[in-house]
Amino acid sequence: MKPTLKNDRFLRALRRQAVDVTPVWMMRQAGRYLPEYRATRSKAGNFMNLCQNPELACEVTLQPLDRFPLDAAILFSDILTIPDAMGLGLYFEEGEGPRFQHPVTDEEAVAKLAVPDPNDELRYVTDAVSLIRRELDGRVPLIGFSGSPWTLATYMVEGGSSKTFSCIKGMMYSRPDLLHRILAVLADSVSVYLAAQIEAGAQAVMVFDTWGGSLSPATYREFSLAYMTKIVEKLKADATTRDVPVVLFTKGGGQWLELMADSGCDALGLDWTTDLSDARARVGDRVALQGNIDPCVLYAPPDTIREQVAMTLASFGKGNGHVFNLGHGIHPAVNPEHAAALVEAVHELSRQYHQ
Amino acid sequence: MKPTLKNDRFLRALRRQAVDVTPVWMMRQAGRYLPEYRATRSKAGNFMNLCQNPELACEVTLQPLDRFPLDAAILFSDILTIPDAMGLGLYFEEGEGPRFQHPVTDEEAVAKLAVPDPNDELRYVTDAVSLIRRELDGRVPLIGFSGSPWTLATYMVEGGSSKTFSCIKGMMYSRPDLLHRILAVLADSVSVYLAAQIEAGAQAVMVFDTWGGSLSPATYREFSLAYMTKIVEKLKADATTRDVPVVLFTKGGGQWLELMADSGCDALGLDWTTDLSDARARVGDRVALQGNIDPCVLYAPPDTIREQVAMTLASFGKGNGHVFNLGHGIHPAVNPEHAAALVEAVHELSRQYHQ
Repeated sequence: MKPTLKNDRFLRALRRQAVDVTPVWMMRQAGRYLPEYRATRSKAGNFMNLCQNPELACEVTLQPLDRFPLDAAILFSDILTIPDAMGLGLYFEEGEGPRFQHPVTDEEAVAKLAVPDPNDELRYVTDAVSLIRRELDGRVPLIGFSGSPWTLATYMVEGGSSKTFSCIKGMMYSRPDLLHRILAVLADSVSVYLAAQIEAGAQAVMVFDTWGGSLSPATYREFSLAYMTKIVEKLKADATTRDVPVVLFTKGGGQWLELMADSGCDALGLDWTTDLSDARARVGDRVALQGNIDPCVLYAPPDTIREQVAMTLASFGKGNGHVFNLGHGIHPAVNPEHAAALVEAVHELSRQYHQ
Repeated sequence: MKPTLKNDRFLRALRRQAVDVTPVWMMRQAGRYLPEYRATRSKAGNFMNLCQNPELACEVTLQPLDRFPLDAAILFSDILTIPDAMGLGLYFEEGEGPRFQHPVTDEEAVAKLAVPDPNDELRYVTDAVSLIRRELDGRVPLIGFSGSPWTLATYMVEGGSSKTFSCIKGMMYSRPDLLHRILAVLADSVSVYLAAQIEAGAQAVMVFDTWGGSLSPATYREFSLAYMTKIVEKLKADATTRDVPVVLFTKGGGQWLELMADSGCDALGLDWTTDLSDARARVGDRVALQGNIDPCVLYAPPDTIREQVAMTLASFGKGNGHVFNLGHGIHPAVNPEHAAALVEAVHELSRQYHQ
């Protein structure tokens, strides 16, 4: 028997229902800007230990909620859990970002890829979701998440982060068949992974397409959006997952919001390069919008943060369907008191838009 | 007495006049993908020596024209010549990109900034322009260029490249007055710098706003576009510069094309995230368009390059006002024969659109 949800603003906003104030959470709200996070991470030894230990993952997930009156918790994990579970050997080099020991660069490597079992290789994730949901005890909803197929594939083919995406785009233009096979396995993997997170207790799910914005309109549709759409369709076709809101976020995807809304998702995440007023005019009768203040605003003094929050709220305007968030993850160097100022300002200043 | 221009397709297309085939050049066409460039650079010792020696800069500017039937030459130089001439001490660390010894981080450093004299501190640039123009002997037009004020300021305030722009955006939100002073000096500097390049022989000029796409719509207008507009206005107000076409290129600026066209410029550079057909429908009756194939297409085999060129040409369609280009600089790992295939395909396949 799950406890009653005491604060359902976030889920109501994703469904474009009325709320008292605009709900707010922050991408990477459990992260390095919090000293208590750094303490737990140092206890864990390294980043992957932290992700793979459900008790520690639960601990850091809840830390920002103890500081700020956030309206949602998000599972603490990494976007690269799926390729790691596929046997690619994820590791982190200090200051270098994620790397894979076995990048997927040829036909043979592609042929070996298989959908990981979310209740076996990825059991540490579903265990963390169950534990966090229990510990939250109905305070706020819990968000599950995954990287998008395209974004996961960039790391798998490049062997790590990239500025130019030359390996994966080389494959895309030279051997599109090979890339489509990778993306098909990933779309299946993400679908069962998110379904398992929902089964374990996630009350909304978000797909992070961090690198979709590196594509052209045609290749975005074919190599990123098509596979996110398959995921949405699978989740919406199954009675056990269909009522859970799905948020799609393509960083740099501001030009393609109409196409993204066509996927059947419930909400779109927006970075700060698109005005909420424009986005709302384009797709706001079909999906909720989540975003979109520049995380760099948090380097400003609290009074300026408040002004910027006011502008963001005014851009969305009156009515339902807005979840306040940053346009990307909070930076490690941000002062936690500035994050507090943002959250407070959202709740205080948004009341007028919900009367 | 300047020699007659034998190939004026590029200038005609920028003025949206009829041409026989679509003109083509490639951003960074004089660059590391060419073995002859690597030989000259190694002779120069380092990158800044190459930029500061007019004979060597002329040599590398002309190299791609000897290989490919390109329709324009572009001055070989660096975008950071202006801040270097301001005394910030530009240097390059292997694999690290450009750095400044004296970043502009406080009021005192801002107060010291002054407009460099293009015929003194930047004389090596105008000398290179004169020499290249003479050596070109009317084969194709010569493009001069500068970084945009915002883009130059990012390097000056960050002290080098950045992924997050946290220093300059911290300044933008905390001390906008300080950043406006930096940008005002830079807009004046770029204006006289481009005017001097024109005086020395540049037949078109391009402003590279490589990092404008990191801004929000409101901050883009205030901190990047406003200053590019000042530059365009100054060039268009002076009888000696007004007839020279000005191209503005904001990478990641696909959402703001209408605003950019309002600047009074003659053409917009486009990256590959916007379809030329859409861009043309939005602003093509006011400005020419330059772009926009993904440079990663050049990793594909020549047949695929040809198909992608065909799609890009078809996207613009029949009529005047298209300069073919990549959506960003050519990558160092590209095979020069693939660049040849692109140039050849543009000329061959575009003839049908100009009948």
